[in-house]
Amino acid sequence: MDPLAPMFEPRSVVVIGASQDKSKLGYGVARNLIGSGYPGEIYLVNPRGGELFGKPIIPSIDLLEKEIDLALVVVRAELVPNILIACSQIGIKHFIILTSGFKESGDEGKAIEYASKKIADEYRLRILGPNCVGIIDTHLPIDTTFIQPPMPLKGNIAFVTQSGALSAALIDYARGEGLGFSKLISLGNQMDVDESDILYTLADDSTTKAIVMYLETIQNGNKFLEIADNASAKKPIIALKVGRSNSGQQAAISHTGSLAGTDAAFTAAFRRANILRASNTREMFNWAIALAELPEPRDNRVAILTNAGGPGVIAADSVEHHGLRMAVLSTETQKKLSQFLSEAASINNPVDMLASASPETYRKCLRILIEDPNVDMICVIAPPPPLFSASAIADQVIETIKAAQKPVLVSLMGSSLVQDAKINLNLGRVPNFPYPEDCINAFSAVWKNKVIRMQNQSLESYSVPQNDIESLRTLISNYKYDDGVLPYEVIEKIFMSYKLPIQPMRLAPNEELAVQRAKEIEYQVAMKISIFGMSHKSDIGGVILDLGSENEVRSAYRYLELRANEFGKIQEFQGVYLQKMATPGHECIVGATRDAVFGPLLMFGSGGIEVEGKRDIEFALAPITKSDLDFIVQNTWAGKRLNGYRNHPKGDIESVKGVLIKVSQMMSDLPEIKEIEMNPLIVGEDHSGSSAVDVRIVIDVPREKE
Amino acid sequence: MDPLAPMFEPRSVVVIGASQDKSKLGYGVARNLIGSGYPGEIYLVNPRGGELFGKPIIPSIDLLEKEIDLALVVVRAELVPNILIACSQIGIKHFIILTSGFKESGDEGKAIEYASKKIADEYRLRILGPNCVGIIDTHLPIDTTFIQPPMPLKGNIAFVTQSGALSAALIDYARGEGLGFSKLISLGNQMDVDESDILYTLADDSTTKAIVMYLETIQNGNKFLEIADNASAKKPIIALKVGRSNSGQQAAISHTGSLAGTDAAFTAAFRRANILRASNTREMFNWAIALAELPEPRDNRVAILTNAGGPGVIAADSVEHHGLRMAVLSTETQKKLSQFLSEAASINNPVDMLASASPETYRKCLRILIEDPNVDMICVIAPPPPLFSASAIADQVIETIKAAQKPVLVSLMGSSLVQDAKINLNLGRVPNFPYPEDCINAFSAVWKNKVIRMQNQSLESYSVPQNDIESLRTLISNYKYDDGVLPYEVIEKIFMSYKLPIQPMRLAPNEELAVQRAKEIEYQVAMKISIFGMSHKSDIGGVILDLGSENEVRSAYRYLELRANEFGKIQEFQGVYLQKMATPGHECIVGATRDAVFGPLLMFGSGGIEVEGKRDIEFALAPITKSDLDFIVQNTWAGKRLNGYRNHPKGDIESVKGVLIKVSQMMSDLPEIKEIEMNPLIVGEDHSGSSAVDVRIVIDVPREKE
Repeated sequence: MDPLAPMFEPRSVVVIGASQDKSKLGYGVARNLIGSGYPGEIYLVNPRGGELFGKPIIPSIDLLEKEIDLALVVVRAELVPNILIACSQIGIKHFIILTSGFKESGDEGKAIEYASKKIADEYRLRILGPNCVGIIDTHLPIDTTFIQPPMPLKGNIAFVTQSGALSAALIDYARGEGLGFSKLISLGNQMDVDESDILYTLADDSTTKAIVMYLETIQNGNKFLEIADNASAKKPIIALKVGRSNSGQQAAISHTGSLAGTDAAFTAAFRRANILRASNTREMFNWAIALAELPEPRDNRVAILTNAGGPGVIAADSVEHHGLRMAVLSTETQKKLSQFLSEAASINNPVDMLASASPETYRKCLRILIEDPNVDMICVIAPPPPLFSASAIADQVIETIKAAQKPVLVSLMGSSLVQDAKINLNLGRVPNFPYPEDCINAFSAVWKNKVIRMQNQSLESYSVPQNDIESLRTLISNYKYDDGVLPYEVIEKIFMSYKLPIQPMRLAPNEELAVQRAKEIEYQVAMKISIFGMSHKSDIGGVILDLGSENEVRSAYRYLELRANEFGKIQEFQGVYLQKMATPGHECIVGATRDAVFGPLLMFGSGGIEVEGKRDIEFALAPITKSDLDFIVQNTWAGKRLNGYRNHPKGDIESVKGVLIKVSQMMSDLPEIKEIEMNPLIVGEDHSGSSAVDVRIVIDVPREKE
Repeated sequence: MDPLAPMFEPRSVVVIGASQDKSKLGYGVARNLIGSGYPGEIYLVNPRGGELFGKPIIPSIDLLEKEIDLALVVVRAELVPNILIACSQIGIKHFIILTSGFKESGDEGKAIEYASKKIADEYRLRILGPNCVGIIDTHLPIDTTFIQPPMPLKGNIAFVTQSGALSAALIDYARGEGLGFSKLISLGNQMDVDESDILYTLADDSTTKAIVMYLETIQNGNKFLEIADNASAKKPIIALKVGRSNSGQQAAISHTGSLAGTDAAFTAAFRRANILRASNTREMFNWAIALAELPEPRDNRVAILTNAGGPGVIAADSVEHHGLRMAVLSTETQKKLSQFLSEAASINNPVDMLASASPETYRKCLRILIEDPNVDMICVIAPPPPLFSASAIADQVIETIKAAQKPVLVSLMGSSLVQDAKINLNLGRVPNFPYPEDCINAFSAVWKNKVIRMQNQSLESYSVPQNDIESLRTLISNYKYDDGVLPYEVIEKIFMSYKLPIQPMRLAPNEELAVQRAKEIEYQVAMKISIFGMSHKSDIGGVILDLGSENEVRSAYRYLELRANEFGKIQEFQGVYLQKMATPGHECIVGATRDAVFGPLLMFGSGGIEVEGKRDIEFALAPITKSDLDFIVQNTWAGKRLNGYRNHPKGDIESVKGVLIKVSQMMSDLPEIKEIEMNPLIVGEDHSGSSAVDVRIVIDVPREKE
């Protein structure tokens, strides 16, 4: 059973801090709870006593005699810890704390929140909030918030938010669209109940067909991934994750007091959990409408039905922009259309019925398009028609749309002239948007929601004997560099254990040995300076490529010794590394870091000096899945090129996938590794392998006595 | 004087085809004209006679006795040519033809349009339309359309559209926003008056502060550029050019029957003419509101004032997304804010006043932000406040916003709960949008509108003696290859005349000469097959690089001869070209084509095999300007890299700019050239020049007797 059930379906609720003062939240909460039509028992508590909305106000918690499922707490923050204890003593286990003045308000509030959390843990209480707006359930119904009534309309979209203010705005946006919600949950400071707990509940909520989340951060990445993965298999989930930008992230941090993960990790996590990431508020909202109301499309071919050319072209542009396809109408469809459309009309897609199109023409053409097997989704465009009313069009098409087994959206272009039509469509639960572009964007979400369900999310792994792992960990722990950068010798051992391809290097502490090593590994060779405690060789010009003879090796060695001296590092100069020049190939970058929220994060893209400028890079969570491997190959130019883009020769893409899987495994096996980067990984032609030429591994250095 | 003045400010108007039948356009046009409050003389004509709206219907044009400035023609298409003649005989020179059934409807209509155009030319008539919605001027006022009344509100945005249906929709969208227009012009088929003519008129229209254009194509690229350049210096111009995508372009072509230019050329043309290109209908609309109402910002630093964290983060994300900057508030501002905001509030940007913020707090904080010299633009966010009404907030801030010398936009988040506030702001002409992202996007347009005015648009040129140009043209005209691809010898002559850098090639018709040429130009050399009439050498593996000795040259020659044989081209085999291998460097692509609308179009980006996959390419019109040169360097990775991105070594960017200027000039001097491409142009380190390794020039081949 869902442990939060008593919070969502309480048989009885008490408002602690109910107030007769209309300017107090305690008034608003009592007003909304009673006004919501909540069918259970309601109790109001306030030491001042009295009466409110015809109910007695009980002066003390101790006087409550009935069993109570849920307490709504609206008292000053400093009173909360004692209230929790008192309530738990009469058996209350579930709380929504609406008051602010906790973690978000400074040190004092933080201490109160900490104390409350300790009490909750001790008495096994479940708490939503504090500093939240509470819960609305339009079906039960119940409204535990203080948001201005009326409650939102009944609907099938659940909205979970880390911003209370957005609840009020969203309810009001929705009202304007005649749109309803199933549940609305404001999370507040997430002292106990977090976004994942709510997702768990909503996954099995029969009144909810689509879940929308406004997120500023995620409390526990692994918990979220596990629950979201399960929930998204049952219904579509849309997330608006804010704090994408640096400045947004700054604002989110100061706002929630939490450490945000990197944006790339969130994108990778949402992809992994089959969550659709909206890029702005309107998109979040419109996608939710479409996903809650529309059937699943068979394929992504869109037909456009319009009474004017311009809006048709706008929609067609948008189809391509969103990666959908324009349907090619069957000849039968064209024949049927031509039977009652005039010669000047267009019977190709977009179908332009011309301005004279009657409501009946709209209906007939729509039906023909619905019947066309080449058409998967249909956008009906209605600018204010010159000769008919938009509402007459709406009335004609509603039944046809409701009966269609294909997604149909209507763009009512305008405002007051299409207002009646909009009301009619809303009453008939036919989703509609003012601009054609909004319809096509919504189709793209409906299509993407289907595509992501077909991904193969099975995890990839690579097995290394436990003994080897243990000895690598011992080896790593013995190195104590300040900056945590591992020396080549350790890197080579790690790579050997994982059978990762590396271009071998040999240390030569003096000129003579440099000459000897160069001969051993065969020309051409590269030479890299080795300075104790210094990892960025290229920053001081400490790398020389393409040496082809003993003379060149000697003069290069002397030059690098000179460089060390110039940089005042002659004491730390340990000689040079010699490395055989790699066969030319595609330069890629493979790397991994640890994200604060989601843990190990892999990276792949174009390498060499171009990695910064081109930003041809994609990310995936580790352990990596089959579909993630495909994704990063298909979505980077580096990957496309290796895959044999057009008539380019194919590179050894399988070898790259192998490297990614091994790095993914390594990040799990060796938690000491904070960061790894191979740049470049030189990838040869198909079946000829790849080789890491420059590898950097940084480990977590425990900070000893600073 | 503006030649179209009598069309826009007629002293008298006749409706030809005025109808008593309410289902006819002739009824709607008469109704709107009379109802609009047009102050001039109005005449109605229809052979049936009678009366309409209290005015007599005159049965024949010949019976019109007064001088008439403008005729609104609403008769069947086939009657139009005779009507034009009849009207011109009584001195009418200006017409708006609203009827459809012309070019857009098939061959018959096309013939009628052609006949009408001939008459117009012969009698020097000016015609708007046919197949258009006409003109609305809210200031004169006049309404020559048949769009459902009421007329749009008076305002200062002019809207020019190639889609009549969009006029109706836009008027209605605008009504919903309480927004007005100065003029609205529907162009229809543009038989005579086109988008440029209208732009010319609007540039000096005192009631218009911003111009919005919906374009499917442009009739005459050069005329448009010249007029738009002048108009945009006087007021902001926003264009929504549709048909960006392949499918959109298909739809636009079938819609207007015109040949569309490439989308890249439109982007380049809009940049050249300082026109802001909107990417969708809503953006077009919102930008217009902001540009018509807001003052110019000093810089691009945005402050956000909110009563809730979430929407503040959303806005901050959007600031970065749109390339603006978050303002860093002065310490004085922070001190002032902290004096009356609570400790839990944020006095950093975004300024979060918390949910309890009163309308007065909004006003006070806003005033403080306006006074901060570090703040250039301010977004005020108001979700439905829990304790106050949104309209109380609106009332408090209106005066402050109107008095501010900085752009301020308000995001009223919601619908019915903020409806009153919206009405108040609209009445006070304070622009507002429902989502914070819309506000920030509008700021980005306001900022961009300032930036583009600072560009140096002076043209670059390169002078080649007229004699040289003449002899090149003669040379070119003497070559008659089927595919129009010029042979290397001609290309070399062209490049020499323009002092363009090319890696020289020498033809060797047999093996012995190949050896000799290789020695002359010095190893390493490249060898390219020469087959008469075949230009894509690499398609048949006809290019061999890095030959370093006589033996290698001999075996390469034999191999290529074999290839020619394998492809059945031994008859056409003319030997091989030998070319000295270029010094390694950055591989770029430089090219030019001729756009159907705007003429020569230059192209620059990353070259080599990557040109296709990375799409790292930008375009500019020729002749190129200083700011265009800067633009394509700053907006391609190829350009950034050459310019010394971070600590990458600088390449010879000046040499690349020189190449672009010369190619730009060449496209003007030599109209025979249809297409030129250097791929790669190898660019060396700074001051070391560049060299075109593979050049392809295609000329227009006159089609003789097919």
